[in-house]
Parts: sequence; C-alpha cells; structure tokens
Amino acid sequence: MEKEKIIVQFPNGAERKYPKGVALEEIAESISPSLKKKSVAGEVNGKLYDMKQTISSNVFIELVDLQSNSGLEVMRHTAAHILAQAVRRIFGKVNLGVGPVIENGFYYDMELGQKLSISDLHTIEKEMRKIISENLEIRREEISREEARILFQADPYKLELLEDIPVGEKISIYRQGEFVDLCRGPHLPSTGLVQAFKLTQVSGAYWRGDSSNQMLQRIYGAAFPNKEELKEYFHFLEEAEKRNHRKLGKELELFMFSEEAPGMPFYLPNGQVIRNELEAYLRKLQESYGYQEVRTPVMMNQRLWEQSGHWEHYKENMYFSEVDEQRFAIKPMNCPGHMLIFKNKLHSYRDLPVRMAEFGQVHRHEFSGALNGLLRVRTFCQDDAHIYVTAAQIEQEVSTALKLIDDVYQTFGFSYEVELSTRPEKRMGEEKLWDEAEAALKNVLHDLNYHYRINEGDGAFYGPKIDIHIKDALKRSHQCATVQLDFQMPEKFDLSYIDEHGEKVRPVVIHRAVFGSIDRFLGILIEHFAGAFPSWLAPVQAKLIPVSNTAHMDYMEKLLAELKQAGIRAELDSREEKLGYKIRDAQKRKVPFILIAGDQEISSQTINVRRYGSEGSTETSFEKFIHFLKESIDNRSLVK
Amino acid sequence: MEKEKIIVQFPNGAERKYPKGVALEEIAESISPSLKKKSVAGEVNGKLYDMKQTISSNVFIELVDLQSNSGLEVMRHTAAHILAQAVRRIFGKVNLGVGPVIENGFYYDMELGQKLSISDLHTIEKEMRKIISENLEIRREEISREEARILFQADPYKLELLEDIPVGEKISIYRQGEFVDLCRGPHLPSTGLVQAFKLTQVSGAYWRGDSSNQMLQRIYGAAFPNKEELKEYFHFLEEAEKRNHRKLGKELELFMFSEEAPGMPFYLPNGQVIRNELEAYLRKLQESYGYQEVRTPVMMNQRLWEQSGHWEHYKENMYFSEVDEQRFAIKPMNCPGHMLIFKNKLHSYRDLPVRMAEFGQVHRHEFSGALNGLLRVRTFCQDDAHIYVTAAQIEQEVSTALKLIDDVYQTFGFSYEVELSTRPEKRMGEEKLWDEAEAALKNVLHDLNYHYRINEGDGAFYGPKIDIHIKDALKRSHQCATVQLDFQMPEKFDLSYIDEHGEKVRPVVIHRAVFGSIDRFLGILIEHFAGAFPSWLAPVQAKLIPVSNTAHMDYMEKLLAELKQAGIRAELDSREEKLGYKIRDAQKRKVPFILIAGDQEISSQTINVRRYGSEGSTETSFEKFIHFLKESIDNRSLVK
Repeated sequence: MEKEKIIVQFPNGAERKYPKGVALEEIAESISPSLKKKSVAGEVNGKLYDMKQTISSNVFIELVDLQSNSGLEVMRHTAAHILAQAVRRIFGKVNLGVGPVIENGFYYDMELGQKLSISDLHTIEKEMRKIISENLEIRREEISREEARILFQADPYKLELLEDIPVGEKISIYRQGEFVDLCRGPHLPSTGLVQAFKLTQVSGAYWRGDSSNQMLQRIYGAAFPNKEELKEYFHFLEEAEKRNHRKLGKELELFMFSEEAPGMPFYLPNGQVIRNELEAYLRKLQESYGYQEVRTPVMMNQRLWEQSGHWEHYKENMYFSEVDEQRFAIKPMNCPGHMLIFKNKLHSYRDLPVRMAEFGQVHRHEFSGALNGLLRVRTFCQDDAHIYVTAAQIEQEVSTALKLIDDVYQTFGFSYEVELSTRPEKRMGEEKLWDEAEAALKNVLHDLNYHYRINEGDGAFYGPKIDIHIKDALKRSHQCATVQLDFQMPEKFDLSYIDEHGEKVRPVVIHRAVFGSIDRFLGILIEHFAGAFPSWLAPVQAKLIPVSNTAHMDYMEKLLAELKQAGIRAELDSREEKLGYKIRDAQKRKVPFILIAGDQEISSQTINVRRYGSEGSTETSFEKFIHFLKESIDNRSLVK
Repeated sequence: MEKEKIIVQFPNGAERKYPKGVALEEIAESISPSLKKKSVAGEVNGKLYDMKQTISSNVFIELVDLQSNSGLEVMRHTAAHILAQAVRRIFGKVNLGVGPVIENGFYYDMELGQKLSISDLHTIEKEMRKIISENLEIRREEISREEARILFQADPYKLELLEDIPVGEKISIYRQGEFVDLCRGPHLPSTGLVQAFKLTQVSGAYWRGDSSNQMLQRIYGAAFPNKEELKEYFHFLEEAEKRNHRKLGKELELFMFSEEAPGMPFYLPNGQVIRNELEAYLRKLQESYGYQEVRTPVMMNQRLWEQSGHWEHYKENMYFSEVDEQRFAIKPMNCPGHMLIFKNKLHSYRDLPVRMAEFGQVHRHEFSGALNGLLRVRTFCQDDAHIYVTAAQIEQEVSTALKLIDDVYQTFGFSYEVELSTRPEKRMGEEKLWDEAEAALKNVLHDLNYHYRINEGDGAFYGPKIDIHIKDALKRSHQCATVQLDFQMPEKFDLSYIDEHGEKVRPVVIHRAVFGSIDRFLGILIEHFAGAFPSWLAPVQAKLIPVSNTAHMDYMEKLLAELKQAGIRAELDSREEKLGYKIRDAQKRKVPFILIAGDQEISSQTINVRRYGSEGSTETSFEKFIHFLKESIDNRSLVK
C-alpha cells in the first residue's frame, strides 16, 4: 500500500505532495539543497517549528531563514543555549534561570559561585565560538513530567519552571552535545548556524524579577544574521551613545537632575532657551490655527479626579497633597481643568469648535528604575489641547489637527508613521458611536492620503485615536503626537452647547498633543540633532572671536551689538586664550556659526564665518551674514 | 505765694509759661479762641490726651485738629461711642464688645436681641445725628477696679475686658450724656465735633475673633473731617468697585475660580494673552540685562527645605506630597532650586555676576477667608531672580536691578515709593556684614537720587532689603518689587566661587522680583487700567465691524488678514446683529480700537476708527492705522 500523502502549500501559491510524516528539513531539501541549508525553522499554519518537525496533515508552510524576524528569533534563542552551555563548560555547576530572546539579541540568567566581570565575558565568548564550530546537532525531545523532574533534579530554578507548566501540556527539552535545557523551542538544527554574536554586558537580576528572590547574574548578548549587521548594530550603539541626550545635556549644559527631585528636570539656561523657543513656536502656530491658550492650577480637589475617572484608573501614578484638610491631586493631565473652563460659560453651536490649549505642567509617578533622563520623567510640560466639537465637525477638526502636527514635524525634519487604534474590549459608549468615530478617523486619514497601520483594539476606553510615531536620525521610533476622540469626558462633566434649534447637545472632545511632552521632545531633539541644533534653536547662535583681544575687540563689540540688536543670541569670547582654543571650544559647544575677525576682516569690513560641521570658512560682509542668519532663524531652517 | 509755673514748648519753637495744672483746652484758648474751637486733642511729649488733660511739668505740646491723623483717630473713636449710645437708645439692653478705630472709620461689636439689617442702620444713623446735635460734653473719669465692676456689672464683655487690665494700671471710663463706656481714650471734648460720618455695613464677628465664642454683630462706619472728604471716600469706593478686578475678570473673561481649587486661578484665553505678554516682555528685558532663565521642579524633597530653613520658618504655609515614600514639599519659593543649579558647576570670579531668573509657579497656603481674587491667592507665578555676586559687585548689581524695576514700572505708568528695611532684632551674620550691606544699599539709593523711607528693623533675618511700593490709578499702594541681600543662603548651601588668587570665596545672593507675583500684578493692572488695557496688553487689539454683513464683509476680511499678518490680535464681528449693538459690545469688552467700514470707507479705501474712551471717530487710511497701531504696540504705549 502506498504511503499516505499530504498536500503542502507554499507562500508563492505552489502546492506539493509529500508522504505523511515528512520533516520540514526534508521538504526544504526537496525544493533545493541551498534552501535546506539556509532554512532555520518553519512556520506551519502560522506556528513556528524546528526543521526536524514532522508533518502529518495538509498544511501551509513558510520556511524561514536568518533574514526573517522569526528566523532571527530562533537563532538568538539558540545563542542563549550556547551561552549557557559555555558557562557550564567553564564554571561547572551553574543553576540556570531563563534565557529569552530580546531586541537585538538574548540573555541568560544564572546562579554562579563567582561574580562575573567583563573579562569573563571574553572567555565565555571564546567557548561559545568553540561550541559553534563543533556544529552540534540540536535535538528536541518530549518527556514526561516525572522524567523531567529526574533530569533537572539538581537545577532548582528549572524545577520551579517545570512545576509552572500546566498539567496536560507537552514538556519538551532540547539537547546539544552534553547540554540539555528545559525549553519550549523551536531552535536551529545545529549550533553551527549561529553566525554573528557578541556578549555585551553582565548585570544583576532577581529571579522572576522579584526583589525578595535570589539575585542572579544576567549575561546579555547581541546576535545578528551576519557580521556586517552585527557591526552596524555596534556602530548604531556607538552613534546613539554619542547622541545620548543625558551625556549631551551635561556637556552642553542644557539640563540637570538632582537627588532632591529624582525624575524632575532642572533646566539650565541653555536648555531653557530651547524650551522657550519650542513653546513660542507652537504658541504662535496654534494661534494661527485658531487655538486659545488657557492655564489651569497644578492641583485640584481629589473629588474632581474621581469625577473624571482619573482617580479610579490612574491613582497609582498620581501624587497627592492636602489643602484645608481636603485631599488634592497634583494634576497628571489637564483635561479636568479644561472641562471646568468649558463649563464656565454657556456655549452656542456658533462658538464651536472651541480649541483650548495649555502648556500644562503635569506630574506622573514612574518607578525610579524606569527614569531615563528627559525621555522618562516624573514631571513634564504637556502641550495639551482639547477641542470641543459638534459631531459634524469631527472630521474637519481631526484633519486640521493632523495638518498642524505635520507642520511641526516638518519643521524638525521628522518623518513619521501613523497608527489608528480602534475600540478595545473594555470600552464605554454605544457601538454606533464607535462605528461612526472609527469611520470618521479612517475617512480623515484616507482624505489626507496617509498610509496608516491599524492597531485593532488598542484605542482608549473612551474613544478611538490616531498616534503619530516620529523617526529620529537613527531611525528610532518615538510616539509623540496623538489625536483622540472622547465621548466620555463630555458625559462625565455634563458638557453641552445649544444647537440651532435651541436644544442642549453634548459636544465631542478631541484630545490632542503635538510634542506630547516638551521635556521628552527636547530629549529626542538633542539625540536627533546630536546636540547640534538648527540656528533657531541653538542656545548660542553665533560666537564672535577676535584674532587678537587687543587689536580686534572694538570691531567685535560693534558686531556683537548689531547681532543682539537683530535679536540674535550672540556671544563674544573675550577670554585671554589662544584663537585656536576658542574655536575648538565653540565647536565643542556646537555653536552654529563662529565669526572671526582680524586685521584683514577689519580692513575689508568683513567677517570670517565657520559653520558648524563644515570644513573651512568663508569671508563675507557682515551685513550679508546677519541677513542670512536672520532669515535662517525666521524660517526655522534645518540647514545648520 | 505765686502759683508754680511750668514751661510749655510748641512745634513752632515758641515757649510759654502756664500755671501748673493748666488744662490743654486752656492752653489752646490762651493762644486763640479759634484754636481752642478746632483742637480735638493734644500730643503731650508725643502721647495723645483729651483737651481736658491737665499739665503739671515742663512739656512739649502739639494740639491736633481733624486734619491730622491723630485728631482724626480721636474723632473716629468718639463716633464709635456715639454709635453705641445710639444703639442703646433705640434697642435698650445691648451688651457692648469693643469699638475701635479702623482705616477710614470705626466699628463697634455688640450683642443685641435682634439681627440688624441695612435699614436699621438708617435709624441708628439718625439717632447718632441727634446725639451729635445735642453736643454732649465728653468726660473722662478714673475709677477703682471695684467701682468699675459695679458700674459694668450688667455688661459681661466689658467685665471681661476689665479683668484684662493689669493690676496697677489706671482704669478710665468716658461719659457722654447717659452713656458710659470703659475706655482708655482719648476722646473729643464733645459729641458735636463729629463732622461727617456714615454707617456702611453690619456683619457677624466672634467675640475676640475666636470662633468658639459668641457671635456678635459688628456695625461699620466711615468718618471724615468734613462732608467733602466723606463724599470723596464714597466716590473712591464706587470707583474701586467699578475697577474691582474680580468683577472685571468675570466681565472681560480674564480668569475664573473653581471650588475645586480655591485660591488657585484658572486663566481664560483673554487673561492668558495678558499673562503671556507680561512674561514675554520681562523675559526680553531681562535678556537685555544679562539674565539667564532657568526652570526648576515644582516639588523637591523635604530635606532640601530643611537645609534652606524654609521648613523651619515657613512650613505652616507649605503644601506637601509624597514621592517614593519620602516627603516632598511643593515649592513656596524658587531659591533652593536655584542654589542647586549654582552648585552644579564650578564658578570663577570671571563668571560673576550670575543672574538666574525663573518664572516659577509657587504654592503658599493662605486661610480661605484671606483669599481675594488674584490679589491674594494660594499659587502664583513669581518672576524670581537670584543674582550671585562678589561683595564688590553688590552696589552695581542692586543699582542695575533697581534700574530694571524702574524700566518696568514706567512701562505701566506706575509711580512708586522706595523703602529700605534694615537689620531686624532676630538676625543672622556678623554686625560688620550688616553695616556694609546697609551702607551699600544706602549708597545705591543715594547715587540714584532716590527718595526713600527707612523701615528700621524690618529687614529679613538674612539681610537688608529694598521694597518698592507702586501707586495705582486710585493712589492705592501695592508692594510688588523687592531687592534683598542674602548672606545666609550661600552659607546654608555652601556656595562658592574661585577668586583671582585661586581661593574659594562665598558669593552674596541678591533676591529680586519685579512683578512679584504675575497673578497679583495682573490683578493690580486690571484695577489700575479699569480693564481698559493699553494696546500691547489688550486681549483683542482691534475689532472689525462691517456696516453691513452682506455688502462689506469682503473688505473687512481682507483687513482682518492684514492685521493678523502684522501680528495684531484682531477679530471680525460677523454676527447677524445691528451695527450699534456690535459697537456697544466691543466697547463693553474695552477693545482699544473699533474699525468700521461701509460703502464710503470702501470707496475711499479707508477705515473709520473709534478709540476706546474717546468720543467720536476718525477716518484714516488703513495703512496709516496699521502702522500707528503696530508702533503703539511695539512701544508699549500707554495712550489707549
């Protein structure tokens, strides 16, 4: 009797017949030996399996290599096993915790008799390379719980993990050479397929992230499909480190932190100049878009936050105080204050939309371990706005808000991606309202010709939203702007306007932020521009340096006065230092323009201009330069 | 034997001899009968006495009339007795509390069987006039405590006051007709000398201000030397009420309050425009004076406030919160944050002075009863600065700070008075330092040719200070700006700079505020300008009104666009309302310029301009107008 056949379908639409029980690696080989060689796992009906996995029914198969995300994950997972194997070979008895895949690589938590240093990592890396060159076959086995208990009897953490596997679920182990690990898989066919990796650091980590548990050692590694990509990654890290806003913030004296207020930034004069520019820019732009600015208190009675729902949903992240024996909350958001302002007077449909903006200082608790310079703080200034609209105005106003956001991001040279988040499982309001709201947002995005991703079920409980993710110079993504529809807040605060027929109608609220947090946006800008801000943002826009302090100071002081007169932030370096030192110092401070003058410039009434980041210098008339710089500032030009 | 003589000296330097035991009224009469008639009391060696007081040693005497402050006080005090007498005549049994003199008049607290209404005040006033026309003689008597106890046995509050008089002190009573009161005096010679008074209101007041005591009724009265001054006072009250910033704040939609945050202002769009203008104006001015702006957190660890001394001296007025199980204080002042910033880097004497400014939102508790619109709030934005100087720089920097203050106050048309407060009894630091500091401040004021008042002993415990009291349009005085020397804060925060010889030296700190509180300053401005702000501050600078919405709207829209292009806050009233209604509405909103256009203006390409507060209107070319308004805004012109 002929062996039973199954039908396998491939991504290109082709179908092939195989005998029942065929392994993925056999399927790959049947197509081409090179396919077998580069395939590291296979997705069977969307689920990832080892290449040794056998197939016994009609399925859809996609073989994956290291170029695919899932292939890369499998390789990183195997790299973690190789790491554990290497550590055991070197240090003998080692209790293993977990060894998962993370962004760009993997880690493994382990309990060793000794504290590992960075130099230990080199030794471990060497042993890992040896295991890779041994090209050990990796084999999956499914065993009974009893067998597993015996196999891992000396491994307390593995035993704990074993007991967490629900009864009835398969228990699998993976073996490579002398090494065995309790693991769900999948893994590479053999250790030799790990191409490019590097151990990066070792740190402490509590077993299961619980500080009442044993502290283990966590070894981190990076792993990529090939050496080039690994190198690129380290280059990226280096570049990111150079642009690190905490480092630049210190060097350029932009901001500081103090242990007296962790997570709450102090802006130094240079940083405050930039903040003021950002605020003034958006203020003016919002004015031209018909926004009205308001200012609401930093703290308000707790009962207001109970009314708004923040207390119920957000109290863990809020700070509180006491006024006249009543509990006050320090605002984590500006919404309730804006609702009170809207309610303060009667509104006619003719007044709508009301666009209410505030640069509001909010406070939100973050764990101290999560704080990260300006990118994750406990207090920040939100460029918040609430737009009160009739149902008919939703599309127009969302569209205009997106236009405003686009204006701002273009000014900084940010490209961005758009994401539409739809109704979540836990939500308030009628289905019909959600249908309309989601359709409205889709219409707007369609009309604007925006490409967007849909994030099903990720909307807020009060309405769907559009999030904007900007891409910085290192192609990192940051969610900043947001446009959210809200049907609940108007309900909770009983807002209304009087319509054409004299009837009270509930408005819809659009929450909107462009920078999101001015503080975080500044952090992103520092990294995006690597601290070399475009002229309009630069704390010092032009630095004047005389060739000789004695001979050329008068000329420079005259120029300085003219620059200041023109509203340009200029400084004259009159220190008793050498010209070269002063130039290097100004370059270190990333001043966009260094202006030098000596005998020659004075006699020709010109100035020698050095642009930050350009080689050499140009001679130009001072009048021309000041005109050029003024224009570049007024236009918020990105050319530095 | 001839009667013994005493020598009396008068303010004009003259001396006269009188028999020992002469009464003040006899002395007055000896000079001239008219002097006796108008004198209401006499200061004997600087202490005030009744005209019946006898003199038995050589003394310096100044007779006072109702034109003097002390004479006026005596008259107001007598008016309070007349009030009590009138109430007893009308209502019979009345228990009297206290009846002191206050600014502009007097009050008397009393316990009556019935609640008084405003109409009762008319009846009482009538009876008071009768008592005045009876011109009852007022007599002082000194009696024993036992006699007093019997005299006031039916007056429980007077008995309580009696027991408070220390043993050995004289107990005096005053009689006028049937009325007698326990009183220290002095009083007028007779009731007929009360010239001009009016009862103003009645309110509740706890006996001795303690809410656990009986609630009494307090009747307030105003009293002046003559009817003209009384009338003037009520005119002032009326004018003040018209300018009341809380009333105008509502009418002009500048700000609001909510019971969710008592004493914490919400700025509505119109008010926020003014705040932003004030801030931008001072920011730019400070920049030209070499200030650097910073921004520090709203709350910081309590231990920082213990270090600064605020916790010890000011904790009753502070709000607190909790972060990571540590007590944080919400800042009542910006000083400690600025000290941390100064300490953040090493300073050379070459860097000094460092002028560090912040528009810092501070919170300070006030009793809810003390809150008063923007004039007394619980949170405000302070235009704070700390200037770090060497000892040698104190004079120059204080002088420059006063110059900056003068610049600002001239911009608003405020005249002001200067007050120097010197070392208080409780103070820190060496005497030599205080000598130098006070001398420095005096030198500066002298060099600037400033008239100033010295307020001995009213300096801060950390150093002497100069306070500036501005006078508003109603001649009311408001303390706003301050320049304070501080030797203690640098000590407490261990601040230092490196001097010419490489030695660590402590800087001196100058605290400085110009507006003081932007919120309070705005409140003062509202009342000063009666809500009719100069163009540069006006929320709407020009209102465009077409004669006909159908015929003239295009022209107006063109003008609106041009005004906006020029950065002018202009609005077009396109409502379906009559021209007259729109004009009145714009006037009610105190818009500086109303621009009207109809057929005539369109054909001549002009505009009809109505200035707020001026009669009539003028025709002008639009170009000319826009140039004029722009210039008036840029110059911050006070001509509305």
